[in-house]
Amino acid sequence: MSNDTAGIVGDTVPPYYAAILTTVLATDPEDLAGYDAASERMLDLARSMDGYLGLEYARADGVGVAVSYWRDLDALRAWREHAEHLGVQLLGRQRFYRAYRARICRVEREYAWRRGDPLGAPPYR
Amino acid sequence: MSNDTAGIVGDTVPPYYAAILTTVLATDPEDLAGYDAASERMLDLARSMDGYLGLEYARADGVGVAVSYWRDLDALRAWREHAEHLGVQLLGRQRFYRAYRARICRVEREYAWRRGDPLGAPPYR
Repeated sequence: MSNDTAGIVGDTVPPYYAAILTTVLATDPEDLAGYDAASERMLDLARSMDGYLGLEYARADGVGVAVSYWRDLDALRAWREHAEHLGVQLLGRQRFYRAYRARICRVEREYAWRRGDPLGAPPYR
Repeated sequence: MSNDTAGIVGDTVPPYYAAILTTVLATDPEDLAGYDAASERMLDLARSMDGYLGLEYARADGVGVAVSYWRDLDALRAWREHAEHLGVQLLGRQRFYRAYRARICRVEREYAWRRGDPLGAPPYR
């Protein structure tokens, strides 16, 4: 992966699944104790799971948008229902988050561009 | 919308469509001239379009994840192919972005939680 595309999950080919998790973080520092460690651990756990394709993520002004990609719905379900992940989801409701919304999506098409590619619209596949 | 959920698009009910746009921003300030104005204008344009449901967005460390939601594939296509939007997409390739990837997704399920809701896993619908 070139530096230009760092942060973008490449090499995916539809169809596959996306979980969009949009979060509003707690503002009280006490609520956020352990948040970074839990996030790191969840990323490691996701990476270890069968069918994990990658994660795209940004947070600004307290709003985070994290999209994880999965080979199929079974892989995504195994992630959603992993015991350790369920524990952290509960911690999220108890402390880390003021609100969140999670969406399960089937990725049907995609297109990608990077510097050096033609300037015309990239192929839509 | 309460302050807790500012930044989260609420009231959506599957099925509907999501366009996930993940971008790596240019680093040269010259390339970024006009970027903020173009982003604002695109948001106004999207809001004006039939079938637009909302936008969730964050950018950090040069990586942006923007998810726009649409009633159906026709609404999303009209947005993708709007003449003014096509012009800004080209500007993106010419100047604003080092790379991007766009994904068209059908949102099949979702769940939401906010402070004050029960601490158990939110209903998965």
